[in-house]
Amino acid sequence: MIRSDRRGNDKLRKVIVTQNYTKYAEGSCLIEMGGTRVVCTASVEEKVPLFLRDTGTGWVTAEYGMLPRSCQNRIPREGTRGRSSGRIYEIQRLIGRSLRAVVDMKTLGERTIWIDCDVLQADGGTRTASITGSFIALVDALKVLKKQRAISRLPVDDFVAATSVGILQGKPMLDLTFKEDSKAEVDMNVVMTGNGKIIEIQGTAEKKPFSQDEMDDLVELAKKGIAELVEIQRGLLGNMIGND
Amino acid sequence: MIRSDRRGNDKLRKVIVTQNYTKYAEGSCLIEMGGTRVVCTASVEEKVPLFLRDTGTGWVTAEYGMLPRSCQNRIPREGTRGRSSGRIYEIQRLIGRSLRAVVDMKTLGERTIWIDCDVLQADGGTRTASITGSFIALVDALKVLKKQRAISRLPVDDFVAATSVGILQGKPMLDLTFKEDSKAEVDMNVVMTGNGKIIEIQGTAEKKPFSQDEMDDLVELAKKGIAELVEIQRGLLGNMIGND
Amino acid sequence: MIRSDRRGNDKLRKVIVTQNYTKYAEGSCLIEMGGTRVVCTASVEEKVPLFLRDTGTGWVTAEYGMLPRSCQNRIPREGTRGRSSGRIYEIQRLIGRSLRAVVDMKTLGERTIWIDCDVLQADGGTRTASITGSFIALVDALKVLKKQRAISRLPVDDFVAATSVGILQGKPMLDLTFKEDSKAEVDMNVVMTGNGKIIEIQGTAEKKPFSQDEMDDLVELAKKGIAELVEIQRGLLGNMIGND
Amino acid sequence: MIRSDRRGNDKLRKVIVTQNYTKYAEGSCLIEMGGTRVVCTASVEEKVPLFLRDTGTGWVTAEYGMLPRSCQNRIPREGTRGRSSGRIYEIQRLIGRSLRAVVDMKTLGERTIWIDCDVLQADGGTRTASITGSFIALVDALKVLKKQRAISRLPVDDFVAATSVGILQGKPMLDLTFKEDSKAEVDMNVVMTGNGKIIEIQGTAEKKPFSQDEMDDLVELAKKGIAELVEIQRGLLGNMIGND
Amino acid sequence: MIRSDRRGNDKLRKVIVTQNYTKYAEGSCLIEMGGTRVVCTASVEEKVPLFLRDTGTGWVTAEYGMLPRSCQNRIPREGTRGRSSGRIYEIQRLIGRSLRAVVDMKTLGERTIWIDCDVLQADGGTRTASITGSFIALVDALKVLKKQRAISRLPVDDFVAATSVGILQGKPMLDLTFKEDSKAEVDMNVVMTGNGKIIEIQGTAEKKPFSQDEMDDLVELAKKGIAELVEIQRGLLGNMIGND
Amino acid sequence: MIRSDRRGNDKLRKVIVTQNYTKYAEGSCLIEMGGTRVVCTASVEEKVPLFLRDTGTGWVTAEYGMLPRSCQNRIPREGTRGRSSGRIYEIQRLIGRSLRAVVDMKTLGERTIWIDCDVLQADGGTRTASITGSFIALVDALKVLKKQRAISRLPVDDFVAATSVGILQGKPMLDLTFKEDSKAEVDMNVVMTGNGKIIEIQGTAEKKPFSQDEMDDLVELAKKGIAELVEIQRGLLGNMIGND
Repeated sequence: MIRSDRRGNDKLRKVIVTQNYTKYAEGSCLIEMGGTRVVCTASVEEKVPLFLRDTGTGWVTAEYGMLPRSCQNRIPREGTRGRSSGRIYEIQRLIGRSLRAVVDMKTLGERTIWIDCDVLQADGGTRTASITGSFIALVDALKVLKKQRAISRLPVDDFVAATSVGILQGKPMLDLTFKEDSKAEVDMNVVMTGNGKIIEIQGTAEKKPFSQDEMDDLVELAKKGIAELVEIQRGLLGNMIGND
Repeated sequence: MIRSDRRGNDKLRKVIVTQNYTKYAEGSCLIEMGGTRVVCTASVEEKVPLFLRDTGTGWVTAEYGMLPRSCQNRIPREGTRGRSSGRIYEIQRLIGRSLRAVVDMKTLGERTIWIDCDVLQADGGTRTASITGSFIALVDALKVLKKQRAISRLPVDDFVAATSVGILQGKPMLDLTFKEDSKAEVDMNVVMTGNGKIIEIQGTAEKKPFSQDEMDDLVELAKKGIAELVEIQRGLLGNMIGND
Repeated sequence: MIRSDRRGNDKLRKVIVTQNYTKYAEGSCLIEMGGTRVVCTASVEEKVPLFLRDTGTGWVTAEYGMLPRSCQNRIPREGTRGRSSGRIYEIQRLIGRSLRAVVDMKTLGERTIWIDCDVLQADGGTRTASITGSFIALVDALKVLKKQRAISRLPVDDFVAATSVGILQGKPMLDLTFKEDSKAEVDMNVVMTGNGKIIEIQGTAEKKPFSQDEMDDLVELAKKGIAELVEIQRGLLGNMIGND
Repeated sequence: MIRSDRRGNDKLRKVIVTQNYTKYAEGSCLIEMGGTRVVCTASVEEKVPLFLRDTGTGWVTAEYGMLPRSCQNRIPREGTRGRSSGRIYEIQRLIGRSLRAVVDMKTLGERTIWIDCDVLQADGGTRTASITGSFIALVDALKVLKKQRAISRLPVDDFVAATSVGILQGKPMLDLTFKEDSKAEVDMNVVMTGNGKIIEIQGTAEKKPFSQDEMDDLVELAKKGIAELVEIQRGLLGNMIGND
Repeated sequence: MIRSDRRGNDKLRKVIVTQNYTKYAEGSCLIEMGGTRVVCTASVEEKVPLFLRDTGTGWVTAEYGMLPRSCQNRIPREGTRGRSSGRIYEIQRLIGRSLRAVVDMKTLGERTIWIDCDVLQADGGTRTASITGSFIALVDALKVLKKQRAISRLPVDDFVAATSVGILQGKPMLDLTFKEDSKAEVDMNVVMTGNGKIIEIQGTAEKKPFSQDEMDDLVELAKKGIAELVEIQRGLLGNMIGND
Repeated sequence: MIRSDRRGNDKLRKVIVTQNYTKYAEGSCLIEMGGTRVVCTASVEEKVPLFLRDTGTGWVTAEYGMLPRSCQNRIPREGTRGRSSGRIYEIQRLIGRSLRAVVDMKTLGERTIWIDCDVLQADGGTRTASITGSFIALVDALKVLKKQRAISRLPVDDFVAATSVGILQGKPMLDLTFKEDSKAEVDMNVVMTGNGKIIEIQGTAEKKPFSQDEMDDLVELAKKGIAELVEIQRGLLGNMIGND
């Protein structure tokens, strides 16, 4: 079997990151992974949710949306439907948890970083591209805070990137397109740190239950892809993460 | 370290299932796992969502709720808040996917099974107890359909049960209470079939990222617990699943 | 005419109250009246609605819900429909008013007791069972406050219980089942105190208008049933109400 | 004690009805009872709710609203708040039930009469004025249907009118103003037919529980007031009700 | 072509203003322009929106609604639909902007004037009638504030009135009825001050784009109509505006 | 006075249009006017709103949104707020009306073109840029329909473009930036056809009412800017509009 774009089974699609994509956000980028394109912004707000007030502790939270015609079929707009779908809640909770796992909230101080991920075009892996891209926007926003001396050091312990993996016709495969994803027997999203530890793993048997061995193969493949994504992040952000 | 209820690290809490808990639902049970108590019902509706109309194919979908005072602190009622929270959407999507993984939708025919899981008392693991309990309600509802000759055979390939596992103070542990869960470094929910294959795995580093080896230990522990839950299901439902 | 469960026209169905039904609520019970089963909880919150702030005066408020499959036909969940129905608002306002009629708000002090009534199974008279059961939960919650010395005495003047009555085929009847209720010509809910005074009366001509004499017969019948319910409450709560 | 407008305790306020108040509705009036002013319209729709489709049976349903500044303090508009309050649901259900009690739905045929009651100015008794006024609008709309030969006879068995009564400083009183209502110990709304039968009775102990004797006095007083209101209706609508 | 009510093309319909139409609002009127009838009230609230707090500056804001049967076809009630339509938002923003254009917010001081326009009967031009009528209610409310010495002078610089104009069968026409409006090729709403300056102009080519010359003719016609409306306002409010 | 970007008062900002910006929509572009950047897509749906069903007539409708951080301050997401703001409703109604003015709905046939305008970055004039850009997307989508022989000819009579104009410090100015707009005394949006006729004009006195002469100057200036925008459209779409 050959993938429609002739990639090897263990290859990522072409990744392009346009840093500082918008002029208002403290940090922002456009991340493109093949046909998937997501605008990620990080906005600083000088207050925290109620449960953190007066604790000296910060917060990172994420929201995710899709332009109505980012997909093959137009999807109704949030404001028209009246509320977000379950899928959207799931994704924004995942993005928020993933980023919070590497941020030192005490050093961040009592402020919130709002992450917004908006999908311009969706071709599989929008949630993992959102995580990889919004980590870049997050660090750029934190650098602004550091330059303003609002924080004493970058409160980030390690890089965070994510990819999807899956089993198609019995073979493990890295970074699925939408078409591949919709035919996959098993679908897995993995979020890892720069040193290869797992932050989040979500695996679903779309067509048939899978064994522990198959799971291990998928995690191995994700690790390879994530390491490459972290190299791209390191190229853009420098080596300061965790050493600062 | 000893667990507060003196259980071994690889032990489930006491499980009590009251089958046919309510008189109207086609299938129902009250499942108790320690202090966690969930009413699960399965309701048959003779129609399907739009996307399945005229395909001869059925559907299984789930909803999940908590009584306002099922927790330490009262939580506002859905109807008062105006809409469900993100957490609830996540859980009901998980329950639905897990059950659908073993149901043969062609044999079910063009009808929907609505699963309702309502938590009377929450003490950790409500979503996994919901899956384990609603599988029982589902099969009982399908038996009613079979008795009515609406379906020719039970359209279920295998058992489905679920448990939570986690890492506390560096040690893998089975079936966390609420208190344990809130202190866990890693928190994982695993859904498996009767023959030990994975349907869904969701692992989150609540405090620190984890290695692939730690992940494997957790899955192993979950497999042990789920096997015990499947034995309980088999005692209540008989051996007919998959052999019918 | 003989009632389907062979009860006399002036007989209540079998009443079972399980006190302290849940472990988190300050007061709770499961009340069963024949096939009707309602979980009632009373939760203490140390604040009051805006209009009572800084008045030293407390509040009692009630919410009511039904599990989706508590009825013959599954009813959509509040969170899915987006909002509560008119019927639900009516019922929760009735429960709140009925309990407030016997609570001395000054003695309660600036705190709110939240009453939650959740119907597990509905077979007629869920609103009156909710009132009778939640009075028990309320008093148990107040006893906790008294034991904690948050209040100096039980701020309850009298017992409160409720029942439905109706006219079927021209005959007055006590405590209607769902089936009886749907065939009744007149349907009435009565809430009374332990000494037989009326707190609330709501009578509706479902099929034909009724005379003042018929109304008096119904109130008389309700008084008999309520007296029996108060005896059950007295057995569980002791004689302290109003004498303390 | 003398009432602020020097009325006797058994007197109604001045009633003014402007029939055909708006030009589009099939039936309409402005009803004024003292300072309370309500626009009532009856609109014919040639379809019925789902549960009546293809039964040949009609429906009467009511909605109720208040202009934002119909009260002493401005109340936020429905559309701004996002949904109706519990009180509004209660009232519109009451109006609908009261009118349905005298309409022969078979003769009406498969169509809906929508009643709208909109309060221009509120000074106590808006729900009972709404019932009294919307009965007039309803009959006028039915006369239009009869003139169009859509129905063969007026499908109305009897008149319907309503009033509030209450106990103030121990004395029964008819037709309370807002000020009186807010000081009443007992508050009761009564809906009756032209021949003095009860359609709906709702009595609430606002301050202290009341006896059956007190209840009977209040119903007697309401009967007197309603008889006067029915005379006004008869003057406007003619004697045709029930004799046609 | 002759207009159905035989008016000249440059004539307004008959205008009737009933000042002080309701007893609670600080200012109110019923304005009738032919078959269009709108209740306008102005309510004083002693606080301002968040963005003006502690600035010493006031605010004027407007809401607009239609009774369900104010139109040929009944329109569902706001509270039932769950939210206001786009058309309603547009209109209330227009009314608010128009009135704010002539109010000196510093002199008004840190309070809000809520304008409510509720259409009893709609026959074209409801938004312009709302502006003309609510200016009267606004000034009457401000006079109350002045009488209470809450403000030192009337903070209103000039009169404000509005009218619709349009092109029908190629001819400019003043003050369109609903029927005329629905056949117009061009539809324009104009808001002007007492001295003939433009506050707001909104012109739409309903059927075919129009030239700048046609636009100028329409504005000229609107100016004539508005001058007549301002004369009516001056008769009711006196000459004090701008001279006080 | 010199504009901050040193433009002449009658100059547009730099316009860049990237045609076919996304791969799924039938027509799409990214339009940039200075710092304002809007993605416009046109999606074909083979059905029409209820009021057009079975009329053989098509429809064009528009929706508009802003990415949360498209502005200086982050704005909450539609799905989070639960509904669209009044401003958004106003804008999407304007875009829809403007495009419909030049589309021949009979030739389009019974289908809907959904226009989506999503603002990536806002720096004044987002609604007028949306109109200018979505006209391009619309025509490209119609060309696809023509190529598929779903329609016999392009059902578009003329070009449509829009710009903002305003008065700043007494001087008329073309194509305002956000900063200029917020200081303008008068703010006007003008939509015109390729032959210079007006489709829509909306002028608002933000600070002081304006004269008819000032209005004429602004319209003149808008006409100049729109003619330049139409030239850009013509370059991208060819001369086929209206001649086909």
